[in-house]
Amino acid sequence: MTQKIRIGLVGYGNIGRGVELAISQFKDMEGVAVFTRRNPADVDSNLPTVSIDDILDYKDAIDVLLLCGGSATDLPQQGPELAKHFSTIDSYDNHGEIPAYFDAIDLAANSGQNISIISVGWDPGLFSLNRALFEAVLPVGQTYTFWGKGLSQGHSDAIRRIAGVNKGVQYTVPLDQALNEVRKGENPELTTREKHMRICYIVSDEGANQSEIEHTIKTMPNYFEPYETVVHFITEEQFEQDHQKMPHGGFVIRTGESETGSKQKAEFQLELESNPEFTSSILVAYARAAVKFKQEGKTGAFSVLDVPMTYLSDKSPAQLRKELL
Amino acid sequence: MTQKIRIGLVGYGNIGRGVELAISQFKDMEGVAVFTRRNPADVDSNLPTVSIDDILDYKDAIDVLLLCGGSATDLPQQGPELAKHFSTIDSYDNHGEIPAYFDAIDLAANSGQNISIISVGWDPGLFSLNRALFEAVLPVGQTYTFWGKGLSQGHSDAIRRIAGVNKGVQYTVPLDQALNEVRKGENPELTTREKHMRICYIVSDEGANQSEIEHTIKTMPNYFEPYETVVHFITEEQFEQDHQKMPHGGFVIRTGESETGSKQKAEFQLELESNPEFTSSILVAYARAAVKFKQEGKTGAFSVLDVPMTYLSDKSPAQLRKELL
Repeated sequence: MTQKIRIGLVGYGNIGRGVELAISQFKDMEGVAVFTRRNPADVDSNLPTVSIDDILDYKDAIDVLLLCGGSATDLPQQGPELAKHFSTIDSYDNHGEIPAYFDAIDLAANSGQNISIISVGWDPGLFSLNRALFEAVLPVGQTYTFWGKGLSQGHSDAIRRIAGVNKGVQYTVPLDQALNEVRKGENPELTTREKHMRICYIVSDEGANQSEIEHTIKTMPNYFEPYETVVHFITEEQFEQDHQKMPHGGFVIRTGESETGSKQKAEFQLELESNPEFTSSILVAYARAAVKFKQEGKTGAFSVLDVPMTYLSDKSPAQLRKELL
Repeated sequence: MTQKIRIGLVGYGNIGRGVELAISQFKDMEGVAVFTRRNPADVDSNLPTVSIDDILDYKDAIDVLLLCGGSATDLPQQGPELAKHFSTIDSYDNHGEIPAYFDAIDLAANSGQNISIISVGWDPGLFSLNRALFEAVLPVGQTYTFWGKGLSQGHSDAIRRIAGVNKGVQYTVPLDQALNEVRKGENPELTTREKHMRICYIVSDEGANQSEIEHTIKTMPNYFEPYETVVHFITEEQFEQDHQKMPHGGFVIRTGESETGSKQKAEFQLELESNPEFTSSILVAYARAAVKFKQEGKTGAFSVLDVPMTYLSDKSPAQLRKELL
């Protein structure tokens, strides 16, 4: 029996917890330790918890580090530093900064002869794979990405900062009319705001002015003002019952036209009861690719677009051809 | 400006004609010649038409040969023979025989230091990519493939052989009930026949006994007997107007469950007005991968599962990261 792939986790928020759970579904993987900036005793994981300061002691005990921090401050600092010493997988999702982040990681990973696969998840990630695939096989056409129905963390935070709001969540919902126009191949010109609406569920403080809260939300610049926004006030009970999960999903659609004018449509959809658990599971699958790239003598930074499907599976290419081709 | 990828076509049926049309949508490609077993003068292509017997004269004029023949008899014979001398792309779709076909092509391609990418198209092909991707990122779950609504060539041929049938087509249609059960995550056990129904449109000969034709169709073993089958008799006019295209499509759906029980669904859909034109366009895109593999010094047989998305595009990996990641 071959040795399992030994995984280290850096950070233990939603993604870190999701990765720990996901590993138990991957029979060829084992979790080694969670590395944390907090007091390791305060981290409630079933894996050994270790101060991030001691991570270099684990260089020989870990095949791939999954970086489970955020894209705003954690990854830009941790990513290049850790890529010098470990092969890494991260879910860096700041689209505009990806080229610069890639270059910084590439330099670090090459210096340590490691593999780093960046921006793994579903967008960037699986959605990117499909955008690239669709564009390649339908060269004349237009690609659309819709997000939702899903919980937006940033918008939920913005709601909760409003006076009188006790609890609140915001869901981004793709607009059926826009989806239908796209699917019909009408190639509409649509901005993000024309493709989505925002629905808020609020538990207000006792005695709070609900119509004032609603007005504050609907006129909030950038976050809500440009969108069709619906605000529902609900009881705490309803909130606890219906709004504790972090669902998400979305659509990548390309409508193309062949040289004779035949309309061809390709569509990729996700519907997730738990966004962080799905993202985590994808990170774990790409650890296999990092191990295989390293075995081939490759080094440096890669994205999902560089990884063939055979590298994501624990089955051999021959078995995959037989079962799935 | 870099040189265009020089494409040769072998065969000029639906796929060959589709490839010739598709090449004009790929700015980095050019068609060199159509190779045929027929009298080259009888082949109505805008490209030079050449006897297949003279194909070896074109070894230095062609980067990739697209094999546009059928899987029943053409490809098993032509594939291994031509892979000795050219890099090739084919759409071999006899699922059960793929492992043996792969081995034969691998031997030939290695002997000639060429690249052969086999079983390119949408199933096998893009559907296979998604089956492999879904299984990797959702390890606990079940994958379903549905085909249609689409024209089945084999079943249409079977209808047309019945006495009294002048013209006829058969469409395979996925059953909504089965699709819905799958999408709800009910993980039903479904055979192909429980997932699809068959709809036939017939123009009967004058004076033919339509109820006898209908009975013959519905009781035809294997082809129709196991399925819910509907037969419509229409006029020749209607037939010419509505049933001249070759539409197809289908669905790959995986419903998975995370370790906490969250349901996660991934779905890939195609809706094609022209099945052969889409398959052709995919073949052309994979010619780019053959060229890149060859430049890297690889040789042998590959499938779509071995090809990263960056290899399908004429854009650089950096440009793809910037635009599509």
